[in-house]
Amino acid sequence: MYMRMYDLIEKKKRNEELTEKEISWLVEGYTKGDIPDYQMAAWLMAVYFNGCSDDEMTFLTMAMAHSGDMLDLSGIEGITADKHSTGGVGDKTTLIVAPIAAACGLKVAKMSGRGLGHTGGTIDKLESIPGFKTTLDKDTFIEGVNKNGLCVIGQSGNITPADKKIYALRDTTATVDSIGLIASSIMSKKLAAGSECIVLDVKTGSGAFMKEHNQAVELAKKMVAIGKGAGRKCCALITDMDIPLGNAIGNALEVKEALKVLKGEGPDDLRQICIRLSAAMLEISGVAKSEQDAMDMATKALESGKAFEKFREMVEYQGGDLSVIDNPDNFKKAVYCKEVKSDVEGYVTRIKTNDCGTASMILGAGREKKEDTIDMSAGIVLCKKNGDYVHKGDVIALMYTDNNNSFETAGRILKNAYEFGNNPVDTAPLIMDVIL
Amino acid sequence: MYMRMYDLIEKKKRNEELTEKEISWLVEGYTKGDIPDYQMAAWLMAVYFNGCSDDEMTFLTMAMAHSGDMLDLSGIEGITADKHSTGGVGDKTTLIVAPIAAACGLKVAKMSGRGLGHTGGTIDKLESIPGFKTTLDKDTFIEGVNKNGLCVIGQSGNITPADKKIYALRDTTATVDSIGLIASSIMSKKLAAGSECIVLDVKTGSGAFMKEHNQAVELAKKMVAIGKGAGRKCCALITDMDIPLGNAIGNALEVKEALKVLKGEGPDDLRQICIRLSAAMLEISGVAKSEQDAMDMATKALESGKAFEKFREMVEYQGGDLSVIDNPDNFKKAVYCKEVKSDVEGYVTRIKTNDCGTASMILGAGREKKEDTIDMSAGIVLCKKNGDYVHKGDVIALMYTDNNNSFETAGRILKNAYEFGNNPVDTAPLIMDVIL
Repeated sequence: MYMRMYDLIEKKKRNEELTEKEISWLVEGYTKGDIPDYQMAAWLMAVYFNGCSDDEMTFLTMAMAHSGDMLDLSGIEGITADKHSTGGVGDKTTLIVAPIAAACGLKVAKMSGRGLGHTGGTIDKLESIPGFKTTLDKDTFIEGVNKNGLCVIGQSGNITPADKKIYALRDTTATVDSIGLIASSIMSKKLAAGSECIVLDVKTGSGAFMKEHNQAVELAKKMVAIGKGAGRKCCALITDMDIPLGNAIGNALEVKEALKVLKGEGPDDLRQICIRLSAAMLEISGVAKSEQDAMDMATKALESGKAFEKFREMVEYQGGDLSVIDNPDNFKKAVYCKEVKSDVEGYVTRIKTNDCGTASMILGAGREKKEDTIDMSAGIVLCKKNGDYVHKGDVIALMYTDNNNSFETAGRILKNAYEFGNNPVDTAPLIMDVIL
Repeated sequence: MYMRMYDLIEKKKRNEELTEKEISWLVEGYTKGDIPDYQMAAWLMAVYFNGCSDDEMTFLTMAMAHSGDMLDLSGIEGITADKHSTGGVGDKTTLIVAPIAAACGLKVAKMSGRGLGHTGGTIDKLESIPGFKTTLDKDTFIEGVNKNGLCVIGQSGNITPADKKIYALRDTTATVDSIGLIASSIMSKKLAAGSECIVLDVKTGSGAFMKEHNQAVELAKKMVAIGKGAGRKCCALITDMDIPLGNAIGNALEVKEALKVLKGEGPDDLRQICIRLSAAMLEISGVAKSEQDAMDMATKALESGKAFEKFREMVEYQGGDLSVIDNPDNFKKAVYCKEVKSDVEGYVTRIKTNDCGTASMILGAGREKKEDTIDMSAGIVLCKKNGDYVHKGDVIALMYTDNNNSFETAGRILKNAYEFGNNPVDTAPLIMDVIL
């Protein structure tokens, strides 16, 4: 069939629906380089304005998923399950959720990403464990999953090259914030990653990409529909990201906090969300009989130490130093630590989440540009969160870094990130909606 | 001032107004190649959806006008006047209007274009006169205007390079049909071309770019506002292009028809529109005291033969063969001529104008691609137009070409271009509106 990209731009511009053939031709042509960036950019902007129909979104997802390797997980014995978060500040849930799920019998073959800007990435966090290898060949990866129930590696091979190329273009043409494009980008990667069960953690609030609750719900519904349409078991939780998750922000600091939760301690918000996410995996996979059953299983996996054991097995299998797992004090410490003290008195009413992420990045825990290197021990521990009462001079946060020049800027941003009031304010529920 | 193209795309996407500085930075950056095509394409599509404010349109026009040479017509003695048509089929008005205006004392220093697709171009038409030079150096051009009152050349030098580059991108990204972008593109060229008085002929109807009357009026109003804002005297006529103008389509055929009008003969529609367009030039320039005075002057210029004399002087000055002007039978004749006969009987109710242009192109009178060469003698003469009664077997059109393989396709298209009915239908008025 003869097609011209011009006609497909015109069609989308006139808000007519593209066919499956047209969308796969477009994705393939752009990935191969037959369709130039400028035509794709015009098409993406037309999609921004006119949106995608559910069919178009599914076609786009499938075309991108099939643009490279589709991970073959057939060598894994048992039910494969994956979890994806739309990203936030202090989100170390994968480090806890994957071990819980594995402890309950699911197989978690997970490919994770790195951090950029104010958000962190699971792969960076895991690499703060000395020796931990995030690049494994496929057989070793599959074997790890079969042996321990979980294995977490960086995106490897030629996974969704179409999405990579299209996302890079969206990133420079102000066409990122289109629900249809976001949903197909995420789901193409999840489908290519091969798991049968997919739980989506869609964050909403000031620290999330989806600031508005209704937008988060729309995105979640669309992703779940795509996942189910592709024959996967799929659900989404809408969770709060109006405040950093847990207290720690920064790679080793977050691993330490995750270890606390895995040992039955740690901040309650983080523990709760991890139980709910792993319960959702257990429920949709059919491993648990009901929501309550799933919650019980997940809680028990934490309390019994089985989830911690799974995490330890994973670290061992992937070459990580077990001495830091068994004794987190063995993690390399930041050269400098500085307290951030409050100038004012009152209840913490709000913490600007993105600003905490930015401060952490400035301290060395994140990358401003892809090429930047990370200081694994750098970051922030929040000592006060929403609802806490603060006196003048109280320590509200601790900053860690190897570069003490960064304290001034990071400290100022952090101090400004806190808002205070005379009365405590109600906080949003941690789990806002479940989209089945 | 530090600017990023990303932010300007985002701003237009959010329907916020860009400042003069932002627009000139954008136009300059794109023309120099600092801003890549894909970002410009995304911005143009956002403009398509959100439109341009009047201010943005003026900023865009001025930035593009000043992106290259601004023609300096200060060496011309008298009032300079220009006419621009948005393009149609059989539109040879420049060949008649410029001589009328010159005969009445205006100075017409005109840069015209070439044809593409189903529309012709004045420069191609003039080149059907053997020897006629459409490339003159600036001094020779100015001298011709001073000597004879008119000179018509092709676009030369570095006129509006920004518009050229942006238009080429719009042409491949389906962003041509935006009123704001069309208005600024046309007006940037007219402003750079330097004339004090500008009459715009905005065509509407099936054969025009602006199919809808209200769109044509909107475009005309915007262009007149830009022209006046830039300190020029400016008006627009909205004229009918639901039917080809005159009877001849094709280069030498159109020159011959123009010569007929200049000699007081020729089709009435063509004669009327030329009188109105030149009268508008006389009126806005102040050469005529009133509309009626302007109409009288223009009519007299035709009837007295003074306009013909001006055309003859221009041809002589630009090296053209006067023997074809004095005796049009001397034009090279097409090798083949074929009649198109009607299969049906009835009143002509409609002629699909674009199809006539396409048939003429197929016969060799136009270019499908920019590189194609033109057969100067090829084209069509319509023998029947709207309202004429046709019997079976009557000749409705004559086709001329040097390539008799083209007759079949062109003949079929032409025959299908005619629609018939049992009763004559009212035709649209030739001049629909005047925008002052």
